[in-house]
Amino acid sequence: MNYQSILNDIHDHVVSVEDKGTVASYIPELAHVNINNFGLHLRTKDEQEYGVGHYNTPFSIQSISKVLALALAASKEGSSILNRLGVEPSGHPFNQLALLEIENGIPRNPFINSGAIVVADVLVSLFDNPKEHFLNYVRDLAGDDNINYNMDIARSEKETGFRNYAAANLLKSFGNLNNPVDDVLECYFMQCALEMTCTQITRSFHMFANKGKCLLEKVRLTEQQVKRINAIMLTCGFYDEAGEFAFEVGLPGKSGVGGGIVALLPDNYVITTWAPGLNKKGNSKLGMLALEQFTTKTQLSIF
Amino acid sequence: MNYQSILNDIHDHVVSVEDKGTVASYIPELAHVNINNFGLHLRTKDEQEYGVGHYNTPFSIQSISKVLALALAASKEGSSILNRLGVEPSGHPFNQLALLEIENGIPRNPFINSGAIVVADVLVSLFDNPKEHFLNYVRDLAGDDNINYNMDIARSEKETGFRNYAAANLLKSFGNLNNPVDDVLECYFMQCALEMTCTQITRSFHMFANKGKCLLEKVRLTEQQVKRINAIMLTCGFYDEAGEFAFEVGLPGKSGVGGGIVALLPDNYVITTWAPGLNKKGNSKLGMLALEQFTTKTQLSIF
Amino acid sequence: MNYQSILNDIHDHVVSVEDKGTVASYIPELAHVNINNFGLHLRTKDEQEYGVGHYNTPFSIQSISKVLALALAASKEGSSILNRLGVEPSGHPFNQLALLEIENGIPRNPFINSGAIVVADVLVSLFDNPKEHFLNYVRDLAGDDNINYNMDIARSEKETGFRNYAAANLLKSFGNLNNPVDDVLECYFMQCALEMTCTQITRSFHMFANKGKCLLEKVRLTEQQVKRINAIMLTCGFYDEAGEFAFEVGLPGKSGVGGGIVALLPDNYVITTWAPGLNKKGNSKLGMLALEQFTTKTQLSIF
Amino acid sequence: MNYQSILNDIHDHVVSVEDKGTVASYIPELAHVNINNFGLHLRTKDEQEYGVGHYNTPFSIQSISKVLALALAASKEGSSILNRLGVEPSGHPFNQLALLEIENGIPRNPFINSGAIVVADVLVSLFDNPKEHFLNYVRDLAGDDNINYNMDIARSEKETGFRNYAAANLLKSFGNLNNPVDDVLECYFMQCALEMTCTQITRSFHMFANKGKCLLEKVRLTEQQVKRINAIMLTCGFYDEAGEFAFEVGLPGKSGVGGGIVALLPDNYVITTWAPGLNKKGNSKLGMLALEQFTTKTQLSIF
Repeated sequence: MNYQSILNDIHDHVVSVEDKGTVASYIPELAHVNINNFGLHLRTKDEQEYGVGHYNTPFSIQSISKVLALALAASKEGSSILNRLGVEPSGHPFNQLALLEIENGIPRNPFINSGAIVVADVLVSLFDNPKEHFLNYVRDLAGDDNINYNMDIARSEKETGFRNYAAANLLKSFGNLNNPVDDVLECYFMQCALEMTCTQITRSFHMFANKGKCLLEKVRLTEQQVKRINAIMLTCGFYDEAGEFAFEVGLPGKSGVGGGIVALLPDNYVITTWAPGLNKKGNSKLGMLALEQFTTKTQLSIF
Repeated sequence: MNYQSILNDIHDHVVSVEDKGTVASYIPELAHVNINNFGLHLRTKDEQEYGVGHYNTPFSIQSISKVLALALAASKEGSSILNRLGVEPSGHPFNQLALLEIENGIPRNPFINSGAIVVADVLVSLFDNPKEHFLNYVRDLAGDDNINYNMDIARSEKETGFRNYAAANLLKSFGNLNNPVDDVLECYFMQCALEMTCTQITRSFHMFANKGKCLLEKVRLTEQQVKRINAIMLTCGFYDEAGEFAFEVGLPGKSGVGGGIVALLPDNYVITTWAPGLNKKGNSKLGMLALEQFTTKTQLSIF
Repeated sequence: MNYQSILNDIHDHVVSVEDKGTVASYIPELAHVNINNFGLHLRTKDEQEYGVGHYNTPFSIQSISKVLALALAASKEGSSILNRLGVEPSGHPFNQLALLEIENGIPRNPFINSGAIVVADVLVSLFDNPKEHFLNYVRDLAGDDNINYNMDIARSEKETGFRNYAAANLLKSFGNLNNPVDDVLECYFMQCALEMTCTQITRSFHMFANKGKCLLEKVRLTEQQVKRINAIMLTCGFYDEAGEFAFEVGLPGKSGVGGGIVALLPDNYVITTWAPGLNKKGNSKLGMLALEQFTTKTQLSIF
Repeated sequence: MNYQSILNDIHDHVVSVEDKGTVASYIPELAHVNINNFGLHLRTKDEQEYGVGHYNTPFSIQSISKVLALALAASKEGSSILNRLGVEPSGHPFNQLALLEIENGIPRNPFINSGAIVVADVLVSLFDNPKEHFLNYVRDLAGDDNINYNMDIARSEKETGFRNYAAANLLKSFGNLNNPVDDVLECYFMQCALEMTCTQITRSFHMFANKGKCLLEKVRLTEQQVKRINAIMLTCGFYDEAGEFAFEVGLPGKSGVGGGIVALLPDNYVITTWAPGLNKKGNSKLGMLALEQFTTKTQLSIF
């Protein structure tokens, strides 16, 4: 298959779409991103890489970091982390705190905010310097020491993150947060403020398509951990559009409000797309379109 | 009517009840209160006072303070406060945060915690030293300078008040909190930690049964403000048992988890009862029984 | 007090208001009512009656019938009916079925539709011909044999009442309906289709302001039953505006989507208003205004 | 791979498990099934079939029928059916009607009851005799004319299905049911009362693992329809355990309260298991265990 040609075709089609969605605006650092950016990067099982557009421009990975934080926590804690977290889709556009309240402080899954805050709490318990540790983990996964936090974004997230403070305090009220709220949220806000390019994200997700072996084999997951995190990505990776994404694209993946989406076919490929305009559900509008076209053109999906 | 004899009869009956409910235990200062305490104090429209049992023992007034804080805020702000608050019963035993989330950060009424936090926010905006100001207001209402905060209770409330932190942050996320979360909650926790006797509470509520004139006429409410706060007490004063209290007792009133209940018949009387054991809904078990007997024996209720 | 003059003033003010709300339109029989109709009728404790406007024009009493059905059921069944019903305000503009589902088929109170359907089920169990029995009961209360069902309205209610069928079936699934769904709903739809004038309604509610004695003393309630039904009217009588009505008007009462509102001050008066335009919560817009003016002008409210 | 040996091992392990769950008991026909039944049937891409245990005993397929009804409706209506249905997981153990109410009568997905009732409504609109048409469709899919409805089960479902009547009426109230409630539910109850063996189910699901081609090629789906229905099975096929099933098993599939589960790996195999004991979420306890073992032993899952 001529992947470069497929990527080029997708690029040309996608950049011509008029309605590019809306850039996230709750913090200035995200609001100022150019909505015309579009990048696409693919790495296949024969270790070839293909890119088009702004695939080497760093952007804020936001919730994509939740997968990597879960991988780090699971690699150290194993399945015991699931005593504090579910693996079911939240299925609810509204009422995130409501759900947490009804279900007694057990977040539905590790990719809703309250769940990711519990994962951050695990990291804070595990490591003396969790922020540094997480950064090094991601650098090892991607084989790239140029990856860094964007401190302005982290600070803005903290200043406006009242809903995350609400969630963390609610978790604390249910006894499902072992460390102080401020410590956990500092780690969480930093993790979301990581900046990476499409290429770096693709490489850091290598292990999810390769039975747990990361690119440079510095760290790893077990096959079972990979299988399970892939399952969670499929059922919970796209906010309230997980079903829609499975339906239209058919790959495990994860999106972030910075406009990034990473998706993968086990034993086959990892693909990352970046387009900052979001649809109403908070997923990259053009990114979803690009991935739908990719699985349609290649017929390479899990279904 | 021989009120003293009626109070005595109620006292004798109530203290003989075996199931006294359960003392609130979420902070040690409340947990250690003797469950056998029972006080009852009445002030009639001809300015006579009657008491029985521990009616001069100070206890933690907790949510009863919400009525006095609302009175202070309303006396300064007028009805503009209602732009930030509803007056409808919450009608929900669970999901307090859920309700706040669904209704976009507008608390249902000023007596659920999130509503009282908004009222505290008003006080923080109004006064340089809101805690001192509120204390002096209550002393003026009761005509008694011996009323004080219990600092141990305030500190314990703060240390365990994660759910209130969650509510305050959620309000903040909706733009319905003008001051920093910590400042508002400090005021709120102090207000709940006020200690008063049945006698002091009865006197401080004098204005609600007397068209807004307080005992010593140092401060006052308008007749309309009194009428409206009485209405809110009736529909919202007893958590999820407001209907039950109206049904069984038939008076506007307010309870607190310290075991106090104050109730009143406009143009007639104010009555306060204290019994630390709570029923499952968080209202004083024997206090509700005592008030039900009082309105049955005297036939003096609003219905 | 010159009541006729007060009623006249209210009438003149209210009919001049431009925004009269919106007439209920879910069935043609209600949609075709003239929005300019306005009636007001008062009966005081000295047995004087005063009326203004269309106070002798029959209209569809709709949910006002729920109070009379409850009175009939309670007079026969006593408080055992409360095993199948709560007395708490529903406090929720949406999710009526949700609430019923969460609370295992126990309706919040007898004035939400599911609660009134349970009351209708009680009547179906009690009487061989519940529809005829209920009609005679209302005629006895009002002392007026001209009161009748509007069969066109009953039929239209039945044809469009899918949500009531949903509620009745949900009640049935929880075992809280003893008779077949169709039998119970036929009784319920008929009861809502009763037509009465302001005068007839005022008279039929005489017992709620007179310790249980009805106008012609043909039937009666106990004092305690009256006190309790008044309490339920106050906390639950106005859909999601019960708090607002208590706050602005300060009387126990009940509204219907036909535009009627009846309210009362115990030991004092009963007042009925009719104006077909509804506000967004489903209560008569001008009716609420008229009653707010009446208690403001007369200072006769329960608070 | 020696599939027969793998099936035998799974069988031997699974039948030795002591806690077999609980047989569904809401209708007598299901309650009387022997909890010790266990069947397993596999069909691989090279058209080989393997079975062990009671794989040729007919049982009530219940909700498994929802996939086949959706396939029939989608094959005639195409994607227009999605205007009346979502594809997102419901994510909620409780409040099925609540969710429908909040989301204005649009069922979350075609596999929750309200969604399946909408699909039944489509069939009633499409066919003169929808029950006969659906039966013939399933017979064609499985290549087996011995498949039949169990009329006793259909009748029992109807007599006890008050919650389904509630759902259908609620759909009707939102205008999302084109035919009379009774007609639609008769079709729906019949469909759930279909009886099939593991072998027949495996064969009828052949097209979902074979790009839309059914066993005898009498009817078919498009590749895109198959891909999409597989996606819905993965995200919504197991009530509130869809995430858990994806996590533990990693296959698209569908369960029924009769104890059946069918699952498949695209381009690879279809497997059906039957064990009547259910876990707390309503899925076959031993069936889920058997499938988890099958994908673990064979390493053949989508992740």
